[in-house]
This record gives sequence, structure tokens and C-alpha cells, in this order.
Amino acid sequence: MLPKEITDYLAANRSRHMEELFELLRYPSVSSQSERKADSLACAERVAGHLRDLGFEAELRPWRQRPVLIARSRAAAGSDRTVLLYGHYDVQPPEPLEQWDSPPFEPTIRDGAIYARGANDDKGQFFAHVKAVEAFVRAGGGLPLNVVFLIEGEEEIGSPELEKFVADNAADLRADYAVVSDSEFFAAGVPSITYGLRGLAYLELTLTGPAGDLHSGLHGGPVVNPLNALARMIAAMHDEAGRVTLGGFYDDVLPLTETEREAWAKLPFDESAYAATIGADLAGGEAGRSVLERRWARPTLDVNGIVGGYQGEGAKTVIPSAATAKVSMRLVPNQRPEKVVAAFRKWVAENTPAGVRAEVKVSAEARPVLVGPEIPAMAAAREALAEAFGGEVAMIRNGASVPITELIQRVLGVEPILMGFGLPDDNLHAPNEHFAVEQFERGTVASAAMLYNLARLA
Amino acid sequence: MLPKEITDYLAANRSRHMEELFELLRYPSVSSQSERKADSLACAERVAGHLRDLGFEAELRPWRQRPVLIARSRAAAGSDRTVLLYGHYDVQPPEPLEQWDSPPFEPTIRDGAIYARGANDDKGQFFAHVKAVEAFVRAGGGLPLNVVFLIEGEEEIGSPELEKFVADNAADLRADYAVVSDSEFFAAGVPSITYGLRGLAYLELTLTGPAGDLHSGLHGGPVVNPLNALARMIAAMHDEAGRVTLGGFYDDVLPLTETEREAWAKLPFDESAYAATIGADLAGGEAGRSVLERRWARPTLDVNGIVGGYQGEGAKTVIPSAATAKVSMRLVPNQRPEKVVAAFRKWVAENTPAGVRAEVKVSAEARPVLVGPEIPAMAAAREALAEAFGGEVAMIRNGASVPITELIQRVLGVEPILMGFGLPDDNLHAPNEHFAVEQFERGTVASAAMLYNLARLA
Repeated sequence: MLPKEITDYLAANRSRHMEELFELLRYPSVSSQSERKADSLACAERVAGHLRDLGFEAELRPWRQRPVLIARSRAAAGSDRTVLLYGHYDVQPPEPLEQWDSPPFEPTIRDGAIYARGANDDKGQFFAHVKAVEAFVRAGGGLPLNVVFLIEGEEEIGSPELEKFVADNAADLRADYAVVSDSEFFAAGVPSITYGLRGLAYLELTLTGPAGDLHSGLHGGPVVNPLNALARMIAAMHDEAGRVTLGGFYDDVLPLTETEREAWAKLPFDESAYAATIGADLAGGEAGRSVLERRWARPTLDVNGIVGGYQGEGAKTVIPSAATAKVSMRLVPNQRPEKVVAAFRKWVAENTPAGVRAEVKVSAEARPVLVGPEIPAMAAAREALAEAFGGEVAMIRNGASVPITELIQRVLGVEPILMGFGLPDDNLHAPNEHFAVEQFERGTVASAAMLYNLARLA
Repeated sequence: MLPKEITDYLAANRSRHMEELFELLRYPSVSSQSERKADSLACAERVAGHLRDLGFEAELRPWRQRPVLIARSRAAAGSDRTVLLYGHYDVQPPEPLEQWDSPPFEPTIRDGAIYARGANDDKGQFFAHVKAVEAFVRAGGGLPLNVVFLIEGEEEIGSPELEKFVADNAADLRADYAVVSDSEFFAAGVPSITYGLRGLAYLELTLTGPAGDLHSGLHGGPVVNPLNALARMIAAMHDEAGRVTLGGFYDDVLPLTETEREAWAKLPFDESAYAATIGADLAGGEAGRSVLERRWARPTLDVNGIVGGYQGEGAKTVIPSAATAKVSMRLVPNQRPEKVVAAFRKWVAENTPAGVRAEVKVSAEARPVLVGPEIPAMAAAREALAEAFGGEVAMIRNGASVPITELIQRVLGVEPILMGFGLPDDNLHAPNEHFAVEQFERGTVASAAMLYNLARLA
């Protein structure tokens, strides 16, 4: 349980903290838009200023198009333990602007929620940690353990090359614990820790046939059409039961444990409500597996786009010279992208129809992440969430990737704790993104409790 | 054999005829470019002028974006027989301009060929008929039979709605014979009559899954991906032997006769030279059929483009809400597009995977054409070509469609004779389109001989 002076301080300073968050939300720090570079820098500088005011050594380290903020401060009483707190100051583009009920960079509170681009993702979430740190510095006699902030500016464009940054700066990022707050509750009222994420292997498969595009009337028949051949190959990558047919694809897949299966069955998850939300029926994937298992714990192979031939309006009778499928595979523990890519290449080599040549190009790879639920930092997080939000804390996974988590685990050798404060209907990446005021305020308490609990671990 | 005064006239006026053709070639009468509308009109008007000078009643009848020229003149000695001569004054766009060795609308002669957009397709070809008519009017005592020219201006955009025009103007187009010169020799030195063309059924198959595009990480697994489902359906439309699996697809296919098979085997066709020309191996289509049979006499099902998901550079992990395949089927005698479309719809209804909804939209339909090689007009054409070009005349088919031919056959009830003067390497629709001077000059003789021969048919 947090000392009373910390919770009192957070309660007493709520309105100022909200004002400060609003100020951060006014920076249009969009990472994918080059004209927002100055705004992004100003936003990063403002965050650094907050941390310097709290005694941190804060530095914007130049990286690609947007600097990475590293800020470090030591525990008041001396400590050999350090926690790494991750966030990102960049945001998604706000477009389409006309679909916002209030301007995306003029934060406003409606129905108990802060409406602004980045309110949830991720300014509101990482700022909760900044304010928790402030409570210790101003009212708790100083930090209970050493703290390093890593706040990047290109998460929304996929954290490109972040691995190199983390490796180059590993000495300054060295930590015993790591907390990532860029995730969400399983549902409103269900505080959650995400202990598993899927990885990714994203490939382009290109089939090349004739030397140039051909008229399908003059030449159609004896010519192998790369688009038809591609469809045939893609179709053959799944069997009738929805399983991926690449050799050894499932060899390294960690089966769901009985404990997980039971725990997931108890989650407040209504399949038909979920189906209605996304407007899809749920007939996809491997037969005989629950919807959550298929989303969180089973690998997939999805075509994300096909290029080749004629994509315009109306009819054009062309046999394309080449066709490309963008194929992404979501990977689960303990699959390795490089191994899956090799299996894909082998399958392609063995299954390319006569008349076309195949080429495989890797666009992106990310390892899946699984954090053992039994580690002490996880227990600290569960208690912190319970203290701040009440109720039972759900242990969940997520089907997507958060690039930093895998780097923290693999490059820094620390188990990342994904403790997010967002809610599932907060409209991330969409118009009218919002973040419940209560989630932010309780988030500051949860973060403070997490620091407090971590400092007390054996 | 043509009277000497006709051949002498054509020989004596060669250079003037060439100059007049050059003048026509200078009009950039591109039908797909709206800024070329005035140039197209001027070109049509110039052609009409040539025919009026020869005593024709020539009229530009307004149609869509480009008028159709109908020009009629009666036989000198009175005749109850009429021949319809078809051509088109529009041309393909000349782009990419930088790939032309001389400007596309400044005709020039190099290596015995006229280089210009439209030199072959189709100004050079139909103008040969105009000059043949001129020879009869100026030197032969008048036309040997009644002549109707039908010269349209939207062939290069697919002759849209031409059926309605032909039907509306059927009385003025009524003829006993019809000659279409918008085709080519089988090879240099092999004058050819094209007696068969494939038809077309062009469809769009759209599969719709989730209500909106979904993040493939968050939702991939239980969701049926419309692109994957589409690939599966397309793949299943062919069997292992390259046959189309739609129900009854081959029921109406007229088998190649023994006579045709033998005649085609004697054509100067080198499979490996053809494969090298188009830069493709010839492993496609139905196993056990010759390359020419697969190109000319067997139906196909080709995907011409797939729309859906992400087509840009790099990676985007999207499960698209919908995906569309543009599918064209080349049809052969005696298939009917409406029957094939119905079979496609039925197949789709029976083979759409769970989790997606299918919709089929028809973009274009054209019937195949087969002209019995035994009809008298065909013999007249064969003799005319032999007289003008020498050698044996090849009877060939072509895998593409020429929209007017089917309309002449079905709407006007006349068997079209496809007697073209182009050569296979004339770069139609491409940079450096050209037309051999000799093909044009002998083409005028062939046209005159055809008129002469037709007038003498019983």
C-alpha cells in the first residue's frame, strides 16, 4: 500500500496534472508527417523539461527523424535497483479531421474523458508515470528506486531501427525492471496485465511470368498468368482445417497451458458482441480453437494486399508480367521469425507453378514476447493495479506487436511488464481518440504503487 | 484478276496516296483523351472529305464522344449487291513519348515502313480501301458494287455502346458482304484471313468480410480475410490439368476440326520463337493442346487484377474489409457470354467460403465469332490477297475480340471477312508503331481485287 502522502499529493494536484497533460496534447507530434517535425521536437523538449524539473538528467538523443528522450534519476536513499519506464511522445495522424467532434489538438473533456489525439496513445499513459515520479520527488522524500525513462518519437511508424538505438544505448538503459504503458484493459473495469504479444514476419512474394504485360486476348491460354499462379500458391498455404501448411510452421508453437485456458475462459468475453463490434463472423483460423486463442496464441498467415495487373475502374484485359502478394504471419511464442521465413522460402521453392519465377523479400520481422506470469515484477504490477483500480487483475495476451517490448526482453535482458491504462473503445488511431479522466488519475496511482512495490522486492 | 487500268492507276498514284495517308496520320485522334476531341473530329471530317470527293454521301453521325462516319455510294452500272467496309479513325494514346524514335504524329518512312501512331491501326488499313475505291471511281468507270463505309472513332476504348449505333443505323448499313481490315498477317510473307475471334466475359468478383479494415495483429485469426478467401476461390476455378472448373464451361465449346488442326500444324509457327518474343514459357492452359489451339480455340479464365488491402510500398498489416478480383474469360465458338456468366454466378454461390459475402458484377460481354471458311466472300478475299501479295493465303483465328465483327454478324446478319494488312511486329498500341510501305501499297491492290471479286460473285 502506497504511503498516504503519495496518494494525497496525487489527489491534491489532479487539476494541475490534467492541465499539464493538456499542454502536451496540444503538440501535433505526428511522426509520419515531416511538416510536424518541429512540433514533435518541441513536444519532446517539453517532456524533458518536466523531468529536469524533477531532478532528472534528461537528454534528447538524435535518432532518424525524431530524437529519443532518455532521462535518468537516482533513488533518494540509494538503491542498486533500476526501473525502465517506456513511452512514446509521437502520435498517429489525426486525419480524417472532419470526423472529429472536437479538434484533435485542442484537448477537451466530455463525458468524463479527455478527447485529443494521443490522449490515450501514448501521452496520457506515459505522463501518468511522470506524475507518479513527481509525487515521490515532491512528497515522498525522493524516488524509491533508480528510474530511467525511455520515450521515443517514432513508435507510430513502427519504431524503425530502434533495435540499434537500444543496443547503442544499452549501458544507459540498463535496468532490473521495465514497465511499458502502451496497452489497455481487457474491458472497462477489468485492469489487465498483458503478458504475451505476437511477433511478425512480413514478406513479399513476387511471381514473374512474361517479360512484359500481355494482351489477354492475343496471348491468353498458353501463358501462365502470375496472378492466377499467385492465387493458387496463397490458397495452398492453408489446409481445409484452416492450418498453415508451411513445413514445421507449428513446431515451435507453445501450446496454451491448462491454466491459461481456464483463465481466458473466465474473462468477460462475449464472442457475439466482439463479432458485432468488428462486423465480422468468426469462421477464420484453425478449427476447434477459441476466438481468444486464435487471436492471441495461434499464428496466422494473412494476405495484406496483392499488386499486379489492373487496379483501376472498369475492365482492362491484361496478363501482368508479375504479381506480388504482401503476406504477414503473426507469430506466437516460441516461434522465431527467421525460422518461419526460411520455411516460407522453402515452401515457395517447392510449390511455385511452372511458368513463373518466385522471389521472396522480407519487409519486417519481430519476435513474439511472452513474460512468465510468475516473476516478482508481475506480482508487483498486479498489486499496483489492484490498489489503484480495485477488482481482480486479468492476465491477458494481445495479438499485435509492441516493438519495444521484444527489444527490452532480448537486447536489454529485462522482462517487460505491460501495464496499460487505456480502455478498448478509446478509438486509438481513429477520430475521437479519448482517454477516461479516471483511467489517467488512477493510472498515476497505479504507477506510483508499481514504483513502490518494485522498490520493496527482494 | 483486276483490270489493268486499276492496277496501273494505283501504281501511278502511290506517292500522292502516301502523302494523303501522312496527312491523316498527323491528326492526333486519340479517343481516350478528351483534349483530343477536336483533333478527332477534324480527322473524321477529313476522311469524310476524301469520300465526298469520290461521290459518296458521307455523314458524321454524332455518337457518344466521337462521331461515326457513314459514307455510301452506288455501283456505276447499278447493282443489288453492297459491301460494308469497316475501319476506325481513332488511335491509341502515343505515350510514353520518350520511347518513340520519331514523333508519333509526324509520320516518317524508315527502313521501308511508315512510322506513326495509327499507321497500321487503323488509318493505314482503312485508307487502303478508300484508295481502292478511288481507283474504281477515277480509272475503272465507277464502283463495281455498292459500297458503305463505317468508320468509327472509339474502337480503341472498346467501341462502347456500338451495338446500339449499329442497330439504330441498320437500314443504312445493310450489306451483303462486310470487310474488316483491322487485323494482321500471320507472319511476314503470309497473307491471312482471320475467320475466328474469341469472345469475352469480364466480371468483378467482390468478397466482403469485416465491416471495416482491421488490424491484422489485434484481430487476425478468427476473422476470414477476404484476400485469402479470394485466392482460394480463384485457385479452385482451375483444376490440376489447367481446365476451368465452372459447371458446364466446356459444354458449348466447338472442338477443333481435323481440317483446322492440320492446317494450323502447317502454319509457319515456331513455339520457341514465340515464347522468346513474349518472354514467357508456355506451360499455361489446358494440358495436351497445342499453343495455337490454346490461344485461338480454347476458352480461358484469367485474373487481370486484384483490388483490396494495401498496395503501396512497404508493409501495412491490414485485413481488408473487402477484396475484388477482375476476372476475364475468353470465350470460343459456340460459347455464349450470358451462359458463362450464369455458370460463374452459380459456381460462386456454391463455393464462397464461410465468413465472406460474394458479389458478381459484369463489366463486359462479347460473343465469339466464327466465319465458315467455305462461304463465297471468303474465297473472294483469298483470291484478292493472293493476287496482291502472292503466296498461299493462311486461314487463321485470333484470340482477341474485334467488337464490330460480332455486331456485323449478329445485328446486321452479314458474315464479316477479316482481311488485314498489318504484320505481327508492327508495335500496335506501343511506341514506334509502323506499317510497311509495301503492305499499304499491296493493301490497296488487295482491297480493289476484293471489290472486283465480290462484284462478280454469283
